[in-house]
Amino acid sequence: MAKQPLNIGIVGYGFMGRAHSNAYKQVAQFFDLARTPVLKAACARDAAKVKAFADTWGYESTETDWRRLLDRKDIDCIDICTPNNAHAEIALAAAQAGKMILCEKPLAMNGPEGLKMVQAVEKAKVPNMVWYNYRRVPACTLARQLIDEGRLGKIFHYRANFLQDWTISADLPQGGAGLWRLDVAAAGSGVTGDLLAHCIDTALWLNGGIKDVCAMTETFIKERKHTLTGKVEKVAIDDACAFLCHFKNGSLGLFESTRYARGHKALYTFEINGEKASIKWDLHDLHRLEYFDHKDESRIRGWHKLHVTDGDHPYMGKWWVPGLQIGYESSFVHQVADFIDGLTTGKPAQPDFRNAYETQLVLDAILDSAKGRQWQEVK
Amino acid sequence: MAKQPLNIGIVGYGFMGRAHSNAYKQVAQFFDLARTPVLKAACARDAAKVKAFADTWGYESTETDWRRLLDRKDIDCIDICTPNNAHAEIALAAAQAGKMILCEKPLAMNGPEGLKMVQAVEKAKVPNMVWYNYRRVPACTLARQLIDEGRLGKIFHYRANFLQDWTISADLPQGGAGLWRLDVAAAGSGVTGDLLAHCIDTALWLNGGIKDVCAMTETFIKERKHTLTGKVEKVAIDDACAFLCHFKNGSLGLFESTRYARGHKALYTFEINGEKASIKWDLHDLHRLEYFDHKDESRIRGWHKLHVTDGDHPYMGKWWVPGLQIGYESSFVHQVADFIDGLTTGKPAQPDFRNAYETQLVLDAILDSAKGRQWQEVK
Amino acid sequence: MAKQPLNIGIVGYGFMGRAHSNAYKQVAQFFDLARTPVLKAACARDAAKVKAFADTWGYESTETDWRRLLDRKDIDCIDICTPNNAHAEIALAAAQAGKMILCEKPLAMNGPEGLKMVQAVEKAKVPNMVWYNYRRVPACTLARQLIDEGRLGKIFHYRANFLQDWTISADLPQGGAGLWRLDVAAAGSGVTGDLLAHCIDTALWLNGGIKDVCAMTETFIKERKHTLTGKVEKVAIDDACAFLCHFKNGSLGLFESTRYARGHKALYTFEINGEKASIKWDLHDLHRLEYFDHKDESRIRGWHKLHVTDGDHPYMGKWWVPGLQIGYESSFVHQVADFIDGLTTGKPAQPDFRNAYETQLVLDAILDSAKGRQWQEVK
Amino acid sequence: MAKQPLNIGIVGYGFMGRAHSNAYKQVAQFFDLARTPVLKAACARDAAKVKAFADTWGYESTETDWRRLLDRKDIDCIDICTPNNAHAEIALAAAQAGKMILCEKPLAMNGPEGLKMVQAVEKAKVPNMVWYNYRRVPACTLARQLIDEGRLGKIFHYRANFLQDWTISADLPQGGAGLWRLDVAAAGSGVTGDLLAHCIDTALWLNGGIKDVCAMTETFIKERKHTLTGKVEKVAIDDACAFLCHFKNGSLGLFESTRYARGHKALYTFEINGEKASIKWDLHDLHRLEYFDHKDESRIRGWHKLHVTDGDHPYMGKWWVPGLQIGYESSFVHQVADFIDGLTTGKPAQPDFRNAYETQLVLDAILDSAKGRQWQEVK
Repeated sequence: MAKQPLNIGIVGYGFMGRAHSNAYKQVAQFFDLARTPVLKAACARDAAKVKAFADTWGYESTETDWRRLLDRKDIDCIDICTPNNAHAEIALAAAQAGKMILCEKPLAMNGPEGLKMVQAVEKAKVPNMVWYNYRRVPACTLARQLIDEGRLGKIFHYRANFLQDWTISADLPQGGAGLWRLDVAAAGSGVTGDLLAHCIDTALWLNGGIKDVCAMTETFIKERKHTLTGKVEKVAIDDACAFLCHFKNGSLGLFESTRYARGHKALYTFEINGEKASIKWDLHDLHRLEYFDHKDESRIRGWHKLHVTDGDHPYMGKWWVPGLQIGYESSFVHQVADFIDGLTTGKPAQPDFRNAYETQLVLDAILDSAKGRQWQEVK
Repeated sequence: MAKQPLNIGIVGYGFMGRAHSNAYKQVAQFFDLARTPVLKAACARDAAKVKAFADTWGYESTETDWRRLLDRKDIDCIDICTPNNAHAEIALAAAQAGKMILCEKPLAMNGPEGLKMVQAVEKAKVPNMVWYNYRRVPACTLARQLIDEGRLGKIFHYRANFLQDWTISADLPQGGAGLWRLDVAAAGSGVTGDLLAHCIDTALWLNGGIKDVCAMTETFIKERKHTLTGKVEKVAIDDACAFLCHFKNGSLGLFESTRYARGHKALYTFEINGEKASIKWDLHDLHRLEYFDHKDESRIRGWHKLHVTDGDHPYMGKWWVPGLQIGYESSFVHQVADFIDGLTTGKPAQPDFRNAYETQLVLDAILDSAKGRQWQEVK
Repeated sequence: MAKQPLNIGIVGYGFMGRAHSNAYKQVAQFFDLARTPVLKAACARDAAKVKAFADTWGYESTETDWRRLLDRKDIDCIDICTPNNAHAEIALAAAQAGKMILCEKPLAMNGPEGLKMVQAVEKAKVPNMVWYNYRRVPACTLARQLIDEGRLGKIFHYRANFLQDWTISADLPQGGAGLWRLDVAAAGSGVTGDLLAHCIDTALWLNGGIKDVCAMTETFIKERKHTLTGKVEKVAIDDACAFLCHFKNGSLGLFESTRYARGHKALYTFEINGEKASIKWDLHDLHRLEYFDHKDESRIRGWHKLHVTDGDHPYMGKWWVPGLQIGYESSFVHQVADFIDGLTTGKPAQPDFRNAYETQLVLDAILDSAKGRQWQEVK
Repeated sequence: MAKQPLNIGIVGYGFMGRAHSNAYKQVAQFFDLARTPVLKAACARDAAKVKAFADTWGYESTETDWRRLLDRKDIDCIDICTPNNAHAEIALAAAQAGKMILCEKPLAMNGPEGLKMVQAVEKAKVPNMVWYNYRRVPACTLARQLIDEGRLGKIFHYRANFLQDWTISADLPQGGAGLWRLDVAAAGSGVTGDLLAHCIDTALWLNGGIKDVCAMTETFIKERKHTLTGKVEKVAIDDACAFLCHFKNGSLGLFESTRYARGHKALYTFEINGEKASIKWDLHDLHRLEYFDHKDESRIRGWHKLHVTDGDHPYMGKWWVPGLQIGYESSFVHQVADFIDGLTTGKPAQPDFRNAYETQLVLDAILDSAKGRQWQEVK
């Protein structure tokens, strides 16, 4: 019996365009879902490049103007994989056109823009979701389960960082293909919107709301050649950002992100310390979760080094056999599976736009705090 | 421009049937190859089950008799994913039918059977390969590069083990679906052919031939209920096997495998100690390679903990960005890519049947040695 | 030829009294020094307890009033191991009496008090030092060597934390023997002066001065029974403290300390990210240093996991053989050795009082910042 | 009240002479014992060197002939720290003289010699012990506790290795001071008696007797200059030794030792897999014990990474505070403490000569097996 298709029109073909496409293609082999993603159309301004992308991934057609996707009846869902500054315009139009929307993170360039997007999808009543994929790394999902079961007790501390080292060279230009994350006009901010956004999404999901923040940012290399203009221009993004915060549950938070941490390629880590138990995770070994439980008998009390690959670990029963790990890309597969499940069960998978908007408000508070060198309430 | 298809007919739909199918589907999105795998037919005796498998993975048709696959002109390549005792019959017939053959490991039930298979494919001149997939985990491939570049110097020691714990319970039956690896009639041996075969393949590939072995085997649980007969029967496989050996290059080898190592799900590790450098690897963190180089300056000399995810690491430039790891299943993707490359370049990817037959001879020597409680030359 | 004695009079017999005494006794067996520590007198108010302590460690005599030590001609050096609130009075008097002074950390209850102590020892021209022992863990000393050699290049980031979990229980009282660290009258502050003081001392030593800080503190358990009064009283120390800072060299700092991090007994860690190399250390594995060097060839570039036990590692040539680690207590042995060397070479070992006073000023700024919820310049 | 002295006369001043002396000096400060070690005399043939050693460590007197020690009434206990080939002669005479004996490991050059030593001390009824110090590393003692409590259940596997890399250079001579371990006349064997002896002692202690063994040995560098003769001579020790074995409890053993494992300074590791739980240890992080317990709830089941520094861990309550580790040398302190306790309680601390003789028999079987290339029963 043929399943109902979920027809996808994707905008953008970069790193995320590839990761999402892979997810659409793999999901039906591993998850038993009511709807099967179908790669209907890929869209980007460069006709030749989008054609090559479509050929590689098996998209049935291409477009060079995303508005064309909205007109097409054969497309159910718009996947926005563009630089950040294009999210809002596309999402607002897509909502109005009645399309489901899957939007790359961060949701928007800032809170007010994000709010409009939330209002648009809620008004249009279209299913919507933001690609904060780390929630669906099995070890992270397990962390959430353990917290939900009350194993950690009252939380005292939350700390997270996301450390990279790829922009240390002063010779790296800003802007243009592959480097738009260094261009404030396209990205809105630097590591704050790129990396801390992930950390904050996870934190809000695992530990609840943030009350106030105090941040500092730094731009180590002040000027870089701009790929689009050819000139040396001021770098307006933040290269590094760290902040202190209070969570609403009374715990203290400490976050840091940088692209100047020599030796770390993509070291996203978090640790949560509760009265009864603690949890640690690290993207560089993403299938590992470390868990400390104070109720273990004293002499054998220590961090449990969990290899989250067992059949009763989240999502893992769908893959191989215990002990065999899956890759980064699988988190996107899981997100598609949950999104589709949400469509059929009526319980929308998270984070939807409204949920992702909370992260946006924290990002705004961080940037404001850093600018004003003062504590800032989160709205 | 449409690429030439590589039409696949697969026999078996178990764990390996899934892993191979995933590889055929993913490979063309990540590797630029002259031929594209096409899932033409899946074959198994149970018509309903093979139909469900074919639907999930997108096989165009099904068969319930593998001989039918050999008759089909639209099939280029037979992929043998059956229990070990069916490899030879299918492979011999497939070779005679002029099909390419991809055969699961171990190649055969024993050396003499393996030799017939080698002779068959060489006589028929059909491309052939055995799925010793660990050679193509990027960290393992990197290990080979480092050795080939002479970085380790004269080798003194090679040690490997493959530890699992899934058969400790006496309640586990033997034989039948999912449990044929416990049934000597289907598997030929226990951990020796299942797990040590992997260790030996890697060792021969990294460190050259083995001269002689001295082994011990053990069957901890002597009787188990047999799923197929319903009776409690003697367990004739080995639950554990360890052996000492001399490599032809003068180094000493130490190997161990068991399904009774509580706490290890699939801990395949190897370590090689050379005069100038050493290497360690561990399947539980498969993207890590540890490397010690004696020529590092003394005070900062220590094991380099490599996160094998950079663009210049083997295969990794095809996937995501530095720091993001891939899964177990990717090793099969790489194997398909290399097999297809081998077809076009005329340099067959390894291990082909002849190469895998070397492992078979070591397995025979191990089992003979254990039985006779004495050192045994490898033929 | 008998060496010149260095006659020690120690005040206090707690954890630090034991650690220092052990150092005095071990040092001459491992280091070839011009002067040999002699345990002349132990002093504490409780005559019986100090007698027992003296017997155990071999002190030749006891006193119950520290002023008596100052009168004794046979004592060269006063070692202050009391709670923090007694440091200044004893040190000021000892300086006036012309005694050398070894003072436990933190130097003082606050900056102004510390300044008086600095002025006193400088006026009296008596050798003086503060027991920030972690500088002399061999792995930390090696870190300093690597920085001094310019291997890290320009520094971007410094992060450190000191995590414990021993005060989570609300049943723990404050004040009195063994618990004076929870009593603000004796300790001055909580984790800030106890644990962060260590982190700051190391940071100033490795990365230079701190310009400004922004801190938050928290007291999770608001009231505890007081051992000395028998009443439930307000807890006035900080249970946790985190702060952001700018170093004078332009790098960003992030520090955290708490006694509520379930799962960590004494996890002091630091990490320094430079343009060319990075370093990590962790007290829970104190003989390990991790070192990442960007100039390593790309494919084998990874964190070097150094086992700092070789003969050319700092201090290690004095102990056993490579691979055999030493304990926490050895850092005190090294400090005594260096102090004595400083006496003979005329280059005083660090941190002396003036050096330790810098840490005091940072501590003051932290506490002010936390109180005022604002950035604070370090004086 | 003055405690009864335990007057020590030590023979030899090398690495072990220092480690034992340190233990005698530290033990009374940390352990409350009925007798206090007193360093009465140090003995070695070189008068100047033994004088320097005695001065450093505080021995009251020196001797240049060990027989003199036996005549002295003021000496209770002879500590034998000589090369292996002198153990027997000294021990036999010391027993006859009625002295307690502490003998370095391995007990003897071979089993028959060891047996004479056992008979001598048993006939003389003198307290005796062998310095297999690793039993008293707290993590190892904890391992024993966990086994004794039945936590592991039926044992399936025991594996251990001891890997070093200090003799790889062909320029290293054999024989003479510091290098007697390379000289078969002084050492009896190579890594077998030096390193495997430790592994076997631990194994017999943790897992019971060994039934039979099958070993291989190798001497990678065939000739080295001899320090004593000045000539290039055949190297007669084993550079590496590995063996398979069956324990009497039905478990399988796998052991390896070498001085040619580039990258390892003193990597002694063991792992025990039981039906219910498993244990791992590693000398390079000697305060760590890893423990896997199958009865942990499935989703949080993983290796517990124990930091064996808590007050209820073996010996640790005597040292510092939780989280602070002790050094290699402390294992000797513990051994002295237990030896003295054994004197007063009448339950002799282990391993005594008879217990250590069991290791000797396994060593003999290993060397016989390697020579004969066959399985060998342990006598």
